Amino acid sequence: MATMTHGEASPDLFGQVPDRASVYEVSPRDGLQNEDAMIPLDGKRRLIAALVEAGLTRIEITSFVSPKWVPQLSDAEELARSIKPPPGVSFSALCPNARGLERALAVGLEEIAVFLSSSEAHNKANINKTIADTLSVFEEIVPPAREAGLRVRAYLSTVWGCPYEGDVDPKVALRISQQLLALGCYQVSLGDTIGVGNPRQTREIVRLFQGEMPSSSFALHLHDTRGTALANALVGLELGVRDFDASVGGVGGCPYAPGAAGNLATEDLVYLLHGMGVQTGIDLDKLILAGNVAEQVIGHPLPGKVHKAGPFRLRKARG
Amino acid sequence: MATMTHGEASPDLFGQVPDRASVYEVSPRDGLQNEDAMIPLDGKRRLIAALVEAGLTRIEITSFVSPKWVPQLSDAEELARSIKPPPGVSFSALCPNARGLERALAVGLEEIAVFLSSSEAHNKANINKTIADTLSVFEEIVPPAREAGLRVRAYLSTVWGCPYEGDVDPKVALRISQQLLALGCYQVSLGDTIGVGNPRQTREIVRLFQGEMPSSSFALHLHDTRGTALANALVGLELGVRDFDASVGGVGGCPYAPGAAGNLATEDLVYLLHGMGVQTGIDLDKLILAGNVAEQVIGHPLPGKVHKAGPFRLRKARG
Repeated sequence: MATMTHGEASPDLFGQVPDRASVYEVSPRDGLQNEDAMIPLDGKRRLIAALVEAGLTRIEITSFVSPKWVPQLSDAEELARSIKPPPGVSFSALCPNARGLERALAVGLEEIAVFLSSSEAHNKANINKTIADTLSVFEEIVPPAREAGLRVRAYLSTVWGCPYEGDVDPKVALRISQQLLALGCYQVSLGDTIGVGNPRQTREIVRLFQGEMPSSSFALHLHDTRGTALANALVGLELGVRDFDASVGGVGGCPYAPGAAGNLATEDLVYLLHGMGVQTGIDLDKLILAGNVAEQVIGHPLPGKVHKAGPFRLRKARG
Repeated sequence: MATMTHGEASPDLFGQVPDRASVYEVSPRDGLQNEDAMIPLDGKRRLIAALVEAGLTRIEITSFVSPKWVPQLSDAEELARSIKPPPGVSFSALCPNARGLERALAVGLEEIAVFLSSSEAHNKANINKTIADTLSVFEEIVPPAREAGLRVRAYLSTVWGCPYEGDVDPKVALRISQQLLALGCYQVSLGDTIGVGNPRQTREIVRLFQGEMPSSSFALHLHDTRGTALANALVGLELGVRDFDASVGGVGGCPYAPGAAGNLATEDLVYLLHGMGVQTGIDLDKLILAGNVAEQVIGHPLPGKVHKAGPFRLRKARG
């Protein structure tokens, strides 16, 4: 199934998965912005270094949202200036507006990410704008960013459900995604922001999108709040999706309670992918070490499972 | 797909799932036997009552293993005598040998479960016998149990991998399962005992078994140690499996560390099933209450996710 990227999976591919998948790591940004405490710069640098060492090649390191809103990432410039990606690795940052783009350009980043929701009520709650007004802002920053040589990714939230509106019509998400791609975004990351998605929905969403664009134009950003993230990822994978967002240790993604899960843990995703023969270029043992670094840096246990359980290793038999 | 129970899924059923699934609840036995502390009888009764109230109809309430080995369940007789299943509900107990069968018959249970491993090293470590010798013991108890009117279920452990031997040939598990069914067991519950299974393996195992027996002759007993339980359940479901073991709150299943996951949490399984339109007869809200009862009775947080996150409910929009 090396070339299947467009249209519906043919039925005889039941159970087939791509040879390779790409993981987009969000822990330094999406993870740390959800921590109460501001993590010191050195801790952020240690986490990012551990992720690079594990083989992650796409890492969202910070956000150029106003420090007023996300004080945890107010060291964005200092962090971005102090670490440079090695060859083959791309660092990106969240970027809400023209001011954010200026800041990203000033520190020499190669990629930014814009974000909005597929439900009006969540978009209003999150960025205090209508979806149309948010897209107007993106019209002012995505083309200039592209002209300046940046790659631009987009996050689209609440695709599986909105905490305020309930069900969301995936056709709305599709139309917004098409506008984002038309503006110059290379990929839209579809978010199950509150972790309510089930595999049937995921199949409907993925097939709807695959009918209108190549699979490489979208990614799945799944939350494990109700334990369904890997089941949803599996559905995407079986339909030919190769791009998944994840966060080492499962840090971030607005968990509602201590020990509860938000973001899908990168090590849990990679354990599943490797077990199914899907290559990622990531070293699982080193990724588990990165999860341990994340726990040290953040200072509390994280919900990811494989960094606790470890990979499958033989024990010595008793008796 | 109302009648698909035998043979491989036909390819055009990609993404189809059964209308209905049956959940076999193991928390009072498999959960509580893994706790350090002995839970008082009244706590066990409260947990079982909450499970019945939530609509579980198949509950393994205790074990007639020697109290020397599992002191946490040494009140097996007292518990079984003090609660009777309402109409339509079946209580069962683990039963290793002739002495266990005597005890089960004395308290009037209608169902027992026998257990062994599909790898010699694990069987030796767990019950200090070869697989052949264990089957010989079952020859002495399963037919008499059937003659006495009991239903007999079997657990087969380490089907996805053995902590001592590594990979396990699923054909060995198949042969043992066929022997168990021939002895008179109505169903073999296939265990991913150490939670290492991936969906590719699950597909291979399920298809191998479906080639030789109806799907109703086996169940999936999945552990969430590495987060893969629901992805594995999904594969089974899509192939037509309708029987799944689970434990409310995710209690038990030998977790290696506090907060780590062993058994698949019943509420996480039911959330996925209901979201996909698969009926279970279980009330998810009441099941979440049963998870809370389990936490109270056991006295520490449990790893299940949906009893923390709750089902998908609307929040009031801000602003």
